Amino acid sequence: MQNFIFHNPTKIIFGRGTAPQIGPETAALGRRALLIYGRESIKKSGLRGQVMNALANTGVAVVEHGGVSSNPVLSHVREGIAKARAEQADVIVAVGGGSVIDTAKAIAAGAPADGDVWDFFTYKQEVKTALPITAVLTLAATGSEMNAGTVITNEATQEKFACTHRLLYPKTSILDPELTFTVPPDYTAYGAADAIAHVLEFYMTTADEDVPVQMDFMEGLIRNIIASCERCLADPCDYGGRAALMWAATLALNGLTGAGLGRTAFPMHMIEHSLSALYNVPHGAGLAVVVPAWLRWRLPQNPARIARRGQEVFGLKPDAEQAVNALRGWFSKTGCPVTLAGLKIPEADIPRIAANAHALARVWRLEDYTPERIEEILGLCR
Amino acid sequence: MQNFIFHNPTKIIFGRGTAPQIGPETAALGRRALLIYGRESIKKSGLRGQVMNALANTGVAVVEHGGVSSNPVLSHVREGIAKARAEQADVIVAVGGGSVIDTAKAIAAGAPADGDVWDFFTYKQEVKTALPITAVLTLAATGSEMNAGTVITNEATQEKFACTHRLLYPKTSILDPELTFTVPPDYTAYGAADAIAHVLEFYMTTADEDVPVQMDFMEGLIRNIIASCERCLADPCDYGGRAALMWAATLALNGLTGAGLGRTAFPMHMIEHSLSALYNVPHGAGLAVVVPAWLRWRLPQNPARIARRGQEVFGLKPDAEQAVNALRGWFSKTGCPVTLAGLKIPEADIPRIAANAHALARVWRLEDYTPERIEEILGLCR
Repeated sequence: MQNFIFHNPTKIIFGRGTAPQIGPETAALGRRALLIYGRESIKKSGLRGQVMNALANTGVAVVEHGGVSSNPVLSHVREGIAKARAEQADVIVAVGGGSVIDTAKAIAAGAPADGDVWDFFTYKQEVKTALPITAVLTLAATGSEMNAGTVITNEATQEKFACTHRLLYPKTSILDPELTFTVPPDYTAYGAADAIAHVLEFYMTTADEDVPVQMDFMEGLIRNIIASCERCLADPCDYGGRAALMWAATLALNGLTGAGLGRTAFPMHMIEHSLSALYNVPHGAGLAVVVPAWLRWRLPQNPARIARRGQEVFGLKPDAEQAVNALRGWFSKTGCPVTLAGLKIPEADIPRIAANAHALARVWRLEDYTPERIEEILGLCR
Repeated sequence: MQNFIFHNPTKIIFGRGTAPQIGPETAALGRRALLIYGRESIKKSGLRGQVMNALANTGVAVVEHGGVSSNPVLSHVREGIAKARAEQADVIVAVGGGSVIDTAKAIAAGAPADGDVWDFFTYKQEVKTALPITAVLTLAATGSEMNAGTVITNEATQEKFACTHRLLYPKTSILDPELTFTVPPDYTAYGAADAIAHVLEFYMTTADEDVPVQMDFMEGLIRNIIASCERCLADPCDYGGRAALMWAATLALNGLTGAGLGRTAFPMHMIEHSLSALYNVPHGAGLAVVVPAWLRWRLPQNPARIARRGQEVFGLKPDAEQAVNALRGWFSKTGCPVTLAGLKIPEADIPRIAANAHALARVWRLEDYTPERIEEILGLCR
């Protein structure tokens, strides 16, 4: 096991009927909230009204900043920063999925900053201070509710980059599985694919072979994400299934899976970010395409670990090829695309995608990932 | 899954050579430290000197309060409180195992309190404020390094009671597996038994049958505690084994295992506390006796869960009887006692032990545990 620091200060409030607690949790942090959300769904479901009431009941003034898209964009973040400054917001409230929480984090970092918020994503400047964030989660997927990362797309440059800083942990995140009952089957499966990919990035890229506690934990998470996703697809209102999927997705990227693994990397995300940046495909759908291809490409280097995952997760005989196929087959069974064609991306675009991904590989210091190598992996997305 | 709040603010610094970080971590919290430790071992090992230097280097003044015993006692806590007040300590530094950290927590709560510290343990008053705590851990066992609980024995009344309050989370705990290389085989095994018991209290007493993420996590922890303990017994300086045991023992009682399980209880600890209070047996050794007996007593009520644990942990066919025997056999193999006789406690004392345990059962509101029932369980400790 490698040396590590684990320090995750986010307070998780989990369960049925917990959304109104956003009121007191936010009131403890500020008096003027910028409320971030997506499109129409939280208006239709009544959640927006519930949150507005809870905030009003605790004396928190609210300015709204809706309209977050999936693959949230920099221009919308900048509008939010301007609004936060103009309204002197002292707390950011996110109500939605990972895109909404990521937008909230970018605004929280950008509003009090001197320089431009995008500089945090290109590592040109570091976050020095940030507004506090509270969140009500409506999608089991990204883990943003209990980590310090945010991913934003700069539409002008077609760069989908990330920023991580410990000031960006939400102070409180509220996770009510019932709020995910209305998530349609495709996005339920994409969320599961995202969570599985998070675990696999750590699982596959650590060079430490002696991390048995973490390996066991990660295998258990993947098993549970798969099993709970299947329950949710069979019955969207299966509370136990939604709850297990939600909690497992949170645990998949809250720092526990990677603690002690030493240097790890996110090469599958690095490649997927380009698919989202260039074609605006849902992140989880892009990952369902990239993950099996990356595993197939990786197979000669680490067949034992891939085989172990197949054994522990799918109950297969130890066989790396079968393990890759099993995961790809499972993604496909849940309705995820597993090829570039399934994402409606022409194979002729591979060099362009690889060039875009390579820009992120440089920022993330994934030195091994040359454009040629990325093209090779993308060539396996068929 | 039941509603829950998870909020664990402790910063864990894990790995080789991390002990000197106690200096800056403590200096960030206070200027006058009360340093708590046990007997001679940290003097002999040089750890005390290393910690004193690290504190001096960051300008923290130190008053020492050594002499913590296993099953730490109230009189020693009270002496520490008097010393903390006299010296105007503003931070408590614990260097040792769970007994030392528990003593530090009791002093941290008691020093600024108006009333008597024991009232926190009998629930007569609640902790209102506490001094901050930092810790360097030297034994993988209790989990006190990352939770808010403390267990102290009142020698005058022979009560071994507990107090839990969120102000008692250590701010920072430093976990260097190398510091456990010198832990002798018996205490290594007792520590493992303690950690297994922590997981089993949650695993066995939840009434929620639909908590698959947690069940999988808990089974993985028990598997890892067993496997890593065996590595440590085979080679006390096996870093990977010591690291896995240390991290698994921390995760066993940091709130994650119980999150979502609803009401759980600690009946095995309730009974063991009496063995420690009356006969001063090592806590883990007492648990190795009580746990198999409690499981055997519980068997008719929940054979399926006991059998599942045997299957997932020991790879057995689903059979509850075999599962109990396998755990008992494993405790025995590692050198733990598994009978009252093995602890040199006469069976004739069972009524006296049960009466003592029943006092704690009342404080913990374990209404089902009458003296007769506790006697019945103790009768199976043979």
